[in-house]
Amino acid sequence: MATNSEANALGYNLKVDYVVCYSFANVGRSQAVQQLEKLLRALSDAGLQTEIRQGDESSLLIFVRASKKRLRRAVYRSRVRDWLYGIRNAEPEPASAIEPQTEAERLRMISHMITLPIEEGGAGITPNHGEWEKVTAIFPLHDVETNRKWMKEWSKKTFLSDDDLDQIRNKFGESVGFYFSFLQSYFRFLAFPAIFGFSCWFFLGGYSVVYTIVNSLWCIIFVEYWKRQEQDLSCRWQTKGVSAVRTNRREFKPEKEVRDDSTGEMRGVFSATKRMQRQLLQIPFALLAAIALGAIIATCFAIEIFISELYNGPFKTYLIFIPTILVSALVPTMSAVLMSIATKLNDYENHETNDGYDVALTQKVFVINFITSYLPVFLTAFVYVPFASRIVPYLDVFHLTVRPFVSKEHASAKRSHFQIDPARLRNQVIYFTVTAQIVGFAMETIVPYLKQGAFRKYKAFNKKRNGRPGQNGDKESPERKPIVAYDDPIEEKEFLKRVRDEVELSEYEVTDDLREMCIQFGYLALFSPVWPLVPVSFFVNNWVELRSDFFKICMEFRRPTPLRADTIGPWLDTLGFLSWVGSITSASLIYMFSGNSQHGPNGEPTDIAGWALLLTIFFSEHLYLLIRYAVETAMAKLEPPFSRKERAERYLVRKRYLDSTLRADVSDDHDEDDAVPISGPPEISRHSLEDDARRSSSHETDPAERFWMRQRGWEESAQIGAGIIEGQGDYEDGKKEQ
Amino acid sequence: MATNSEANALGYNLKVDYVVCYSFANVGRSQAVQQLEKLLRALSDAGLQTEIRQGDESSLLIFVRASKKRLRRAVYRSRVRDWLYGIRNAEPEPASAIEPQTEAERLRMISHMITLPIEEGGAGITPNHGEWEKVTAIFPLHDVETNRKWMKEWSKKTFLSDDDLDQIRNKFGESVGFYFSFLQSYFRFLAFPAIFGFSCWFFLGGYSVVYTIVNSLWCIIFVEYWKRQEQDLSCRWQTKGVSAVRTNRREFKPEKEVRDDSTGEMRGVFSATKRMQRQLLQIPFALLAAIALGAIIATCFAIEIFISELYNGPFKTYLIFIPTILVSALVPTMSAVLMSIATKLNDYENHETNDGYDVALTQKVFVINFITSYLPVFLTAFVYVPFASRIVPYLDVFHLTVRPFVSKEHASAKRSHFQIDPARLRNQVIYFTVTAQIVGFAMETIVPYLKQGAFRKYKAFNKKRNGRPGQNGDKESPERKPIVAYDDPIEEKEFLKRVRDEVELSEYEVTDDLREMCIQFGYLALFSPVWPLVPVSFFVNNWVELRSDFFKICMEFRRPTPLRADTIGPWLDTLGFLSWVGSITSASLIYMFSGNSQHGPNGEPTDIAGWALLLTIFFSEHLYLLIRYAVETAMAKLEPPFSRKERAERYLVRKRYLDSTLRADVSDDHDEDDAVPISGPPEISRHSLEDDARRSSSHETDPAERFWMRQRGWEESAQIGAGIIEGQGDYEDGKKEQ
Repeated sequence: MATNSEANALGYNLKVDYVVCYSFANVGRSQAVQQLEKLLRALSDAGLQTEIRQGDESSLLIFVRASKKRLRRAVYRSRVRDWLYGIRNAEPEPASAIEPQTEAERLRMISHMITLPIEEGGAGITPNHGEWEKVTAIFPLHDVETNRKWMKEWSKKTFLSDDDLDQIRNKFGESVGFYFSFLQSYFRFLAFPAIFGFSCWFFLGGYSVVYTIVNSLWCIIFVEYWKRQEQDLSCRWQTKGVSAVRTNRREFKPEKEVRDDSTGEMRGVFSATKRMQRQLLQIPFALLAAIALGAIIATCFAIEIFISELYNGPFKTYLIFIPTILVSALVPTMSAVLMSIATKLNDYENHETNDGYDVALTQKVFVINFITSYLPVFLTAFVYVPFASRIVPYLDVFHLTVRPFVSKEHASAKRSHFQIDPARLRNQVIYFTVTAQIVGFAMETIVPYLKQGAFRKYKAFNKKRNGRPGQNGDKESPERKPIVAYDDPIEEKEFLKRVRDEVELSEYEVTDDLREMCIQFGYLALFSPVWPLVPVSFFVNNWVELRSDFFKICMEFRRPTPLRADTIGPWLDTLGFLSWVGSITSASLIYMFSGNSQHGPNGEPTDIAGWALLLTIFFSEHLYLLIRYAVETAMAKLEPPFSRKERAERYLVRKRYLDSTLRADVSDDHDEDDAVPISGPPEISRHSLEDDARRSSSHETDPAERFWMRQRGWEESAQIGAGIIEGQGDYEDGKKEQ
Repeated sequence: MATNSEANALGYNLKVDYVVCYSFANVGRSQAVQQLEKLLRALSDAGLQTEIRQGDESSLLIFVRASKKRLRRAVYRSRVRDWLYGIRNAEPEPASAIEPQTEAERLRMISHMITLPIEEGGAGITPNHGEWEKVTAIFPLHDVETNRKWMKEWSKKTFLSDDDLDQIRNKFGESVGFYFSFLQSYFRFLAFPAIFGFSCWFFLGGYSVVYTIVNSLWCIIFVEYWKRQEQDLSCRWQTKGVSAVRTNRREFKPEKEVRDDSTGEMRGVFSATKRMQRQLLQIPFALLAAIALGAIIATCFAIEIFISELYNGPFKTYLIFIPTILVSALVPTMSAVLMSIATKLNDYENHETNDGYDVALTQKVFVINFITSYLPVFLTAFVYVPFASRIVPYLDVFHLTVRPFVSKEHASAKRSHFQIDPARLRNQVIYFTVTAQIVGFAMETIVPYLKQGAFRKYKAFNKKRNGRPGQNGDKESPERKPIVAYDDPIEEKEFLKRVRDEVELSEYEVTDDLREMCIQFGYLALFSPVWPLVPVSFFVNNWVELRSDFFKICMEFRRPTPLRADTIGPWLDTLGFLSWVGSITSASLIYMFSGNSQHGPNGEPTDIAGWALLLTIFFSEHLYLLIRYAVETAMAKLEPPFSRKERAERYLVRKRYLDSTLRADVSDDHDEDDAVPISGPPEISRHSLEDDARRSSSHETDPAERFWMRQRGWEESAQIGAGIIEGQGDYEDGKKEQ
């Protein structure tokens, strides 16, 4: 236990490290008991002490805590592995003296003790999979007090400090730590475009070139800064290169076993080329997603245009919601279908590690995200405004959508004059960047919290309504609902109630929060020239987001098992990609909509020349790439402080090894085994040298050695050289003579 | 000495390791002698044995060989440094047993002994710089026999094997080895586009879409393949990460001294941000170079159009050479001027290492190379052909260029009808890819060789013409030229003659050869859709090039001091950049010139729509980038064999350390310090447990401990759990009852 507060927390949680939830629903009684014994024995063999309490009517709660000695051994084993794979630079201390550094490390170690295969020293419990299907959850308990304390502190601050982020990492692990770090950096960086955007909006209005250029620059600098920051953080949190020690997924099906060259162990492999062939299926999947979602969104968009700007009959204010309802109904459905296809594809690709699996899944799902988030605005900006007057006549077909509600004549009645709504694009951007964010916040944070509270009240009400329970349910009255009665010791009642509440929460996935932030960044990169207050809205939103996400983790999800990470993963590439697309869309928007454009009879800008637009995009994109390359190169030269420290550590490790095992004999200065002495006799003349040469040549047969014996020592060479120099005539003498 | 042939070679070279050339021209006699003594003493202190012979009338040759012991020490020190910085994975053997692995390493070590500063154990001789300005050259002698043998062998082979490349590396060092490796890979890869290009040319002619697509794909795959190959080679030749041990340039002027965290030594630093500010000067330099060279080339191009297609007067066949002469005169001059500006800029940037200096200089010079090599073809393809009829009327002004040669009326006389020469582009491409390559080969390899031979004959003739020489020149007849007479021992005459010849050669720079190959690759990437036989020409040319470059190194340059490298440097980025530009130009060429285009009255293609061209470029470029990204990702997953080996070695190093220094106590299986025994009494009932609890609770005050004492051992937990399960009613029982 590293700190006092952690000691208190553990005490508050009755020193329970993990809770294993074992369900015996839909299983025969003897079978359940047998499985339970097996589970408990496995846990015990791995060095974990157990206590059982009742969970609910069909599950047991197994409280697990690790024995000190076995925990130490697990920490030692893990540190050795880290060191062997180069993640850790300092050699691990001996097993008897070792302690987990942080609470997160401790929890991670115990999680390993529960889940690692038996041959690696764990209990081999694989929740929801294979043999241990009935183990529905393994999770640590929340440290409620610290959570509350932090939420209170942070609601008073604007910016979190590095120490706060370190504390998050110490408690929740590096994966969550990276997310909050990223969010904090993003928030801090948003200050500048927020202020700049506000001034531009105030003085220049929308579609200003200055704002667009600064915005693109900001995107480039932020992404490059975060790459560097990630590197620094991974050195600071000592997780650099952690992807090398990932354990295999349970679902991984190797095609054959090979002996690993370095470690000498057998490991299963799956041919990388085979996987790549399977990955080619991503292309038709992406096309399918694009077409399916694109069709839905485009159709609903067209219907909306029809109803809002063409239709002129009754109930207009109500009918305007038809496309909204259609979108809200169809898009999530189709997304879910596509997401399940993506997951199946991903399983088919048979990734070795969880990391690889997640990265590949993120890539597939991103296509879906990109279309659902950005296509509506693309349609408005690049289809509606330039081409509406050409498309509108074809929209008549959509009168069919209002036919269920109004008569035929009313449906066909049209507005005599179609006028492009110039504010449509701006309103849409405001919707996505302000309204949708608020709604998202509510859906993500407030609604689940209320749902939980409501659900618990319902359960409590249900319990009371069914009367006082007895130990064995009254089987003579089958119409009575199953009674929920827990035979808890008095002093544990509150604790167990809290645990049962936590069991019902869901599992936290950091990737969902990262996805949300990346999509938000995309709006900033792609569409903020339309409405320069976008960064202001995001700045405010992200202050709330950071605290609400923390609240969410504490209140609406089980405490996550700490995971190590050295990057935010594929989302980093996504940010770069969105920044790149942003350079294209921003240039197009500025070209098409900046103030000087003429407006035609229907309100559309008339002087959009295809070639000029493409030329603008061409230059804008290449300028973006050039500047990005320059910023990358510049950033690469400025080494972040912790990277330098990490490099120094690696150097020192080797130095210590060297000092300890090798003798460096640098004190010996005599060249004893040279045949010719360095310093020779003082009085030399050519004559005596020749004599020497004649004398030695009779002994020496190797012409090379004869060569080297002519001048012994540097003094002789100097004399010979001086002779040659003087023989050539003095430079000054020669000048005087001529 | 590693092999017999090396022993022979050294014997042939009289076991001379290095030749230091000391010039005493333009220096007073006593000063020269003093400096010479200082030089010889420094060499001797560093452990080098010296022999002096006369070089020519104003220089001395100092033959240097290293003492075995000091050489071993230098090798040991270098290996330790490599190991500390992570370049080498195996710990260095003790100094007494160590030997240089290859001839190149031996030479490199001795070069270090000569040039490293005194505090690092060298003699501190800095040729042509500072204190040792009069030392004009330090170089090893050629191993003439092996050179001849290899040239003979390789002239019979088509492809060099990996062993041949290893031998080049063993003799000349990794830097030269990388170049030949690259050339060999490039040559091998060219086989495919050569065959494919020939078939396309035969069946489809020029400007075929199929050929262009395949060509672009080939460029992508080649560059990615070479990146992987480089990595593999650097692991195989154990130079991976060698940039970490670069020594500082002599000309580096640090602004302050800092203590290095890891090594504890003081080192000079120069602020990276300051250097970056200085590097911003590259932008105006690039613009200046572009404008200056562009103006010259464009002007000469316009003159050429005028004379060849407009002018209709006398002497046309002679006047046609005016632009050629102008280009041949002005472009190299301007290039030289720009190159010197670039070098001054580079010096101003104050780079720390030679590597950094070279990379920066290459980047600057590449602008010059790009313009001089490709702008003429760009002008023909994208200015002349589409726009000639609009520009031609303005070319009248160039009649001024022919005025010196013909009368005014003749100069103004024009051809009545201007017709675009459709073959101009193709002829120009053929010129650059065939003729210019042959001429380049001649200029690079044949001419210097002939020049050398001629120069030597001239010197010998001169010597004979001035009569037989005496030791001290006859000063009474000043009109006699200085006599060149060498007082060599008989058996060394031939050797010294060879050495004197080698002294007169110049210093080899591998970067020039790499530049040549990259520019050649650029023609292939950018312009080969014009004439699909381009790869055929390059295939033939490169077979010759590899052997002629080796000939060149052996015959026309001094033997290079072996340098280590783990990459071909900035040229790799250049290849990628050229490949990228190629995607744009190829698409444009195909769009503008493929067979379906209509031809206008003057022969220009009429249906080039600006927007269609830009759209083609847009799609072509992005498709290129997408495919490149896909190929990169795919290549990254296939780990080259030596990289895997290197990774395994790193693992094993740490494992050995671990085994030697730490005790792993994995045999201890008893949890002695756990308070609660794992296995408890067999007969448990709830009642007895409650009794136990009441009893123990009177002792235990910590609620957590009381919690954990309720069930001792897993058997108790299992029994309690079984009780709970059965208490909930059997699933099957419940079903039957309902």
